Amino acid sequence: MGKQRLEAFTDGVYAIVITLLILDIRIPNVQPASLGTALAGMLPQVFTYVLSFFVVALYWFSHHRVAQQVKQIDGTFVWLNMVWLLFVTVMPFPAALLGRYPLQPIPIAIYGVDLILTNVTGFVILLYMKGHPDLCFTLVDSRLLRRQVPVYAVTNGVYALGIALAWYLPWISYGLYASVLLALMVRSARIPNPLAER
Amino acid sequence: MGKQRLEAFTDGVYAIVITLLILDIRIPNVQPASLGTALAGMLPQVFTYVLSFFVVALYWFSHHRVAQQVKQIDGTFVWLNMVWLLFVTVMPFPAALLGRYPLQPIPIAIYGVDLILTNVTGFVILLYMKGHPDLCFTLVDSRLLRRQVPVYAVTNGVYALGIALAWYLPWISYGLYASVLLALMVRSARIPNPLAER
Amino acid sequence: MGKQRLEAFTDGVYAIVITLLILDIRIPNVQPASLGTALAGMLPQVFTYVLSFFVVALYWFSHHRVAQQVKQIDGTFVWLNMVWLLFVTVMPFPAALLGRYPLQPIPIAIYGVDLILTNVTGFVILLYMKGHPDLCFTLVDSRLLRRQVPVYAVTNGVYALGIALAWYLPWISYGLYASVLLALMVRSARIPNPLAER
Amino acid sequence: MGKQRLEAFTDGVYAIVITLLILDIRIPNVQPASLGTALAGMLPQVFTYVLSFFVVALYWFSHHRVAQQVKQIDGTFVWLNMVWLLFVTVMPFPAALLGRYPLQPIPIAIYGVDLILTNVTGFVILLYMKGHPDLCFTLVDSRLLRRQVPVYAVTNGVYALGIALAWYLPWISYGLYASVLLALMVRSARIPNPLAER
Repeated sequence: MGKQRLEAFTDGVYAIVITLLILDIRIPNVQPASLGTALAGMLPQVFTYVLSFFVVALYWFSHHRVAQQVKQIDGTFVWLNMVWLLFVTVMPFPAALLGRYPLQPIPIAIYGVDLILTNVTGFVILLYMKGHPDLCFTLVDSRLLRRQVPVYAVTNGVYALGIALAWYLPWISYGLYASVLLALMVRSARIPNPLAER
Repeated sequence: MGKQRLEAFTDGVYAIVITLLILDIRIPNVQPASLGTALAGMLPQVFTYVLSFFVVALYWFSHHRVAQQVKQIDGTFVWLNMVWLLFVTVMPFPAALLGRYPLQPIPIAIYGVDLILTNVTGFVILLYMKGHPDLCFTLVDSRLLRRQVPVYAVTNGVYALGIALAWYLPWISYGLYASVLLALMVRSARIPNPLAER
Repeated sequence: MGKQRLEAFTDGVYAIVITLLILDIRIPNVQPASLGTALAGMLPQVFTYVLSFFVVALYWFSHHRVAQQVKQIDGTFVWLNMVWLLFVTVMPFPAALLGRYPLQPIPIAIYGVDLILTNVTGFVILLYMKGHPDLCFTLVDSRLLRRQVPVYAVTNGVYALGIALAWYLPWISYGLYASVLLALMVRSARIPNPLAER
Repeated sequence: MGKQRLEAFTDGVYAIVITLLILDIRIPNVQPASLGTALAGMLPQVFTYVLSFFVVALYWFSHHRVAQQVKQIDGTFVWLNMVWLLFVTVMPFPAALLGRYPLQPIPIAIYGVDLILTNVTGFVILLYMKGHPDLCFTLVDSRLLRRQVPVYAVTNGVYALGIALAWYLPWISYGLYASVLLALMVRSARIPNPLAER
């Protein structure tokens, strides 16, 4: 089926993005005696790495739950998917920026903007599926969308709050990003058979 | 089927190229206070990144539309496909060059030459398929080729114009590349079921 | 089947990690006359590279032997698998650190800690499979676990010994890591049909 | 089938290696006025890049022709395949070294040694298949091996000659590597259906 090609390509992109994140954690270049101190100073980078790893993992997961409902794809769907991937492949940049400038407002804001853009594109794809029932196995109807809207609204609202607080309480911004991530992970972990055979 | 192996390999290469592009956008190494200015100065790089992302995406898309017509492959087809991939895997270099030297003629020209070489190889593959109908599902006949020729001619003509103008009006060169890309994206977005099951 | 998507993603991550390891072996930047000496000085890095290559290969192998027993997956399984991948994707960092600071205790310890964390996550996944027989083809029963426990215990015990000795006899630590790896490789090489069709 | 997992992993590794090669071609950091000269000075690197691209492509091709004959795999086969991949994933290092020190004997020799090691491992795999007919579709018999031996002997002989001449006539070494590559590419291009379905 045609959508399998797009899924394979998408899987490949996610696998590479999630693996490339480690390349931004450069080994310190110090005297062996100060290696411990240098590594301890890298803890913000490690935190950002783990956060970004699970962010990408979560997007991969939700991508598959969307893809599961898709029967066939058209040209517009390919390009919507590409825009989604654009915001995902960009992730190593804000991740590296945040790791390098841990408590600076601009990196926190850029990180949050990328999170929101990825989410919004995902929602646009859902809307497109609603308008093209011939592409879907399951009907993406108003009822399903109405159930999704609060999730998207809360998620993006918290991200937006994180961006706004970046200039005043950067630690809270980190905490907000991490909390949303954790909440979404726990939510998806409860799914009984998330990638069932079609 | 044998062609699936080549397609999987090709998909992998495309997925990696499109994801590697972000590695060329290095995070600035400045005082936090000048981070905003430093990031603003990276806008040409960001523009080149987005352009290159969709260039690679478009080549992946057209690769699949060609692959869809292919039933089986022979040794020559494998090597023609490899030459095609060579020009695609090269893309991160002109992209990085263009991002580093935004309005310089040589990077613009090299970028355009790579676009043309990739296109020409794609067309050579179509010609090869025309000469070997046993490899194809759909006959790549003169009628189909005649429909494709103007697209290739206009595309490469505009790229060549962009190369020539690089020494005089670099902004126009950028604009020409981006316009062709956008036109081809819109054109392919209209395809009803681009990657249908075979 | 749903688990195939997770397997494909996991395969991709492993393939990228094992290939990225070479990026940490930077070519020396010296006068041609001193190139031989410079390359000879890189032997510890080469040793670490080969060690890490086979470590990742071994984890890929055991991943597949686990995946073979899995019939379907649920949300928690996806996240356990992601944690496993986290510790695998991290590997290029301790590998590069160990190559750059060959006989220093901290890099040896970090390397060993990553080995143990990956192993422990693998064991947690086995425990999860034991508790969810509906996810498995073969029952992961107490008998099978009892057979695996000594392997995990010895492996992690030797790694822990390697970590402890890093501050006193770093060469022995290296030797311990390499010996466990070799023993596990020989053990798995004896498997008659390790990735049989299901 | 179990071998498909190993093939997918192997395909992934090849796709990444062939794409990573471009990362070693760093963009020059000069004044725009001297960009032309700087890029012209990179021609040896470009030559090495193209050579290495087709070397990896050729190994991928021969890997698949071997894999085609394989019905199922055992533990030893997995590890022989891993050793093969080790020498392939190493390739970006000698390629970068050769690009950085174009006419120096040591890089040429290391490059040739890697080519020979990859070839020899491929031949060992053939021997293993001959000894384990239960793993193969087609019998890898003495007749087939006898047909392959001269190819391996000539290929590795020429590579060895290239290594020896590296200290006296480095240009000839380059020429020898490139000629063998070209001869093997032409030979494989003539295969009617190299990746046929099994």
